[in-house]
Amino acid sequence: KSKWTVVEEKLLRREFTFPDFVTALAFVNKVGAIAEEEGHHPDLHLSYGKVVVELWTHAIQGLSENDFIVAAKIDALGF
Amino acid sequence: KSKWTVVEEKLLRREFTFPDFVTALAFVNKVGAIAEEEGHHPDLHLSYGKVVVELWTHAIQGLSENDFIVAAKIDALGF
Repeated sequence: KSKWTVVEEKLLRREFTFPDFVTALAFVNKVGAIAEEEGHHPDLHLSYGKVVVELWTHAIQGLSENDFIVAAKIDALGF
Repeated sequence: KSKWTVVEEKLLRREFTFPDFVTALAFVNKVGAIAEEEGHHPDLHLSYGKVVVELWTHAIQGLSENDFIVAAKIDALGF
């Protein structure tokens, strides 16, 4: 089962937990590098020990292939 | 007038805008360094060209001096 949740059929969301702020921030930077590579940028909600990633495609107000590509690359980080 | 908004008398929130994702992410890292220095960590909502910073103190479910110190240090970054 995918660790991503489809929210209202137009948004992919996944929550990641970390032992502290610094490791959560390091993850945000890794996701940022993927976003730049792909030219497709998630929303990232960073708090102490937690990052929530949300992916969708503004232009279509829903999900596109880009969202699933970025989600797969984030998953491949192994968290 | 302060650029920070007090939300429901228990949360400081400020929105910062940037030309792109990379500069927004660089700002998140600067705020992260302040948070680590102070041992007090805001929530950071990073999206393309925008960062929303929220400060409050979990232990008292409201605002403490730490929140205003971190807010002032973030302001001193000059954004």
